[in-house]
Amino acid sequence: MATHNLLLLPGDGIGTEIMAEVKKIIGWFNARGGATFETDEGLVGGAAYDAHGKAISEEDMAKAMSADAVIFGAVGGPKWDGVAYDVRPEAGLLRLRKDLELFANLRPAICYPALAASSSLKQDVVEGLDILIVRELTGGVYFGEPKEITDLGNGQKRAVDTQVYDTFEIERIARVAFDLARTRKNKVCSMEKRNVMKSGLLWNEVVTGVHDREFKDVELSHMLADAGGMQLVRWPKQFDVIVTDNLFGDMLSDIAAMLTGSLGMLPSASLGAPDAKTGMRKAMYEPVHGSAPDIAGTGAANPIAMIASFAMALRYSFGLVAEADMVEKAISATLDKGLRTKDLMSEGMTAVGTTEMGDAILAEM
Amino acid sequence: MATHNLLLLPGDGIGTEIMAEVKKIIGWFNARGGATFETDEGLVGGAAYDAHGKAISEEDMAKAMSADAVIFGAVGGPKWDGVAYDVRPEAGLLRLRKDLELFANLRPAICYPALAASSSLKQDVVEGLDILIVRELTGGVYFGEPKEITDLGNGQKRAVDTQVYDTFEIERIARVAFDLARTRKNKVCSMEKRNVMKSGLLWNEVVTGVHDREFKDVELSHMLADAGGMQLVRWPKQFDVIVTDNLFGDMLSDIAAMLTGSLGMLPSASLGAPDAKTGMRKAMYEPVHGSAPDIAGTGAANPIAMIASFAMALRYSFGLVAEADMVEKAISATLDKGLRTKDLMSEGMTAVGTTEMGDAILAEM
Ligand SMILES: CC(C)[C@H](C(=O)O)[C@@H](O)C(=O)O
Ligand SMILES: CC(C)[C@H](C(=O)O)[C@@H](O)C(=O)O
Repeated sequence: MATHNLLLLPGDGIGTEIMAEVKKIIGWFNARGGATFETDEGLVGGAAYDAHGKAISEEDMAKAMSADAVIFGAVGGPKWDGVAYDVRPEAGLLRLRKDLELFANLRPAICYPALAASSSLKQDVVEGLDILIVRELTGGVYFGEPKEITDLGNGQKRAVDTQVYDTFEIERIARVAFDLARTRKNKVCSMEKRNVMKSGLLWNEVVTGVHDREFKDVELSHMLADAGGMQLVRWPKQFDVIVTDNLFGDMLSDIAAMLTGSLGMLPSASLGAPDAKTGMRKAMYEPVHGSAPDIAGTGAANPIAMIASFAMALRYSFGLVAEADMVEKAISATLDKGLRTKDLMSEGMTAVGTTEMGDAILAEM
Repeated sequence: MATHNLLLLPGDGIGTEIMAEVKKIIGWFNARGGATFETDEGLVGGAAYDAHGKAISEEDMAKAMSADAVIFGAVGGPKWDGVAYDVRPEAGLLRLRKDLELFANLRPAICYPALAASSSLKQDVVEGLDILIVRELTGGVYFGEPKEITDLGNGQKRAVDTQVYDTFEIERIARVAFDLARTRKNKVCSMEKRNVMKSGLLWNEVVTGVHDREFKDVELSHMLADAGGMQLVRWPKQFDVIVTDNLFGDMLSDIAAMLTGSLGMLPSASLGAPDAKTGMRKAMYEPVHGSAPDIAGTGAANPIAMIASFAMALRYSFGLVAEADMVEKAISATLDKGLRTKDLMSEGMTAVGTTEMGDAILAEM
């Protein structure tokens, strides 16, 4: 069987700690035989800034470009609050997304049965929740130009960010959403603010066009993004796949993440277009949560979102569906046994740290 | 005592029905004597479009400019989905906000004790909730130029919206937030995406500057807007006043609204700067909810957000604090008695329609 090349970019804060747990899982697969993995490692975010003065080095960018998949931890922290905008930790993440053209960000929000009671939402509201947010990741206000602060004199400055979307960008993300809906409950809800934003108007028009031409069998609805956020909190199970732009996707996926009981649970996949010759897509896998500088180094971080992100790599980059299922089931079984990191802890459960949680998942496999 | 001039703009959908309940309250105050109100009425949104071909007529705009306060219902509905962007129902609302320079939108999210159980969030998460979202309302991506869709040929279009903020716009909204915090728990949390947006960077810098120069006694914190949305769902009671831009404020206030058990509960005030001579501020008061076309005409609409918006007018435009308290207490007492419109209905409660709810509140007064 094939050997796959992975670039590991642990990043900052708890990134290193949770990546260590993924390395154990990779080691387990390599020891087992079958599909195996070769790994290389690089720096990103504040760690890269400290080493090279920029948020990712050209050398590591080149490695990312040639890897079969990038496994990404988290970036940022108060240590780098003062650094220049262009080299701030997040710039490394955004450059990876942009240069690898990872336009499709898949953020599943699944409520594990063992955790339904620990959400801030009522149990019946989140129990059995299984939605997928498909977020556009290389366009919109994240990358549009002009993006600048100008000094107007008189003590006044003007800051400008630009939200831009072209038809093709909306078409390709819509197709990803419809395709995935077909493997699920066959429903897509598209969210924008067409009542205020021209980009929302175009978004709505293009998604509808793709639907009517290519995906008539999928049920499509539209919701204003503010109403969508509200409905996610009111009754999230009404949704199957949600497709939305970069900034709304950022907000909405964090809210969806919170529904599931802890931000420490949710993985994500960022995918490019399939290569015309090989069919391979560039891809990066990362937890939805951040670098959690407040608990970094204490061994308290929850490694589940990171491990589940690796499971998504198995599924989406390498077609290793059985292997992905195995990892996901091991996570679920570990939770069923009552093991909990700090973020998930509740009465009667067994408190464990990062490495114990990783070891327990490995033991289940 | 003075007579105050109100312009009533019921708008579309349930707007007319809930405005009818406010008229009863106004009638009650006029009959009582003391502070009295003269009312005029106009059209806005789809209703104005149907009558004049635009979302608000120049005549009604002139009335709004000269009124002491505007009481606004809601606009929009599927009937006007196809009308041109510039005359769509929302354009009337946005023009009122912009031309009256109502830059400060106050959106309190209060969880009435009687409703704590009916939120989708756990009772202990929302019980006693009392937060205030201060949203910038005349800037940002809502009004920035360019805002356009261009045809690139080749079947491709490009949509552009522009997020713009100048120092003075951020300063004045920050001052409103800090001032209000001093009358509350003295805490302000400012939310933006400085890790991605230049406007977020300027926002953060200017809010910090205003704080350090003028409001050192108020506790200021900063949160990324995506994390803020998440924290609103996780543990909303950590907040007192939240200050944020137009678009984030739109998203975050809808989420906050949902925490309180129903969107039908939340009022808002939109205020301009105090006039240099008279000290009066232009002001508009409107419910946070929309025109709910699905239930329009059925008599099922909840008038509480609309009536509570009028209470905010009493408080903020006319300094009638005792009168505002009286209206708010009457709402609370009516809920305590178990009366519920459809959106609030739960077992053991008494179902009522729009007019019965209005009458019951009036009876409490
Ligand atoms: C770290 C930050 C730049 C990033 C984003 O805004 O996209 C994060 O919030 C996310 O959702 O992946
Ligand atoms: C109707 C719409 C234009 C408006 C907005 O986006 O501001 C509404 O959602 C609100 O929050 O008042």
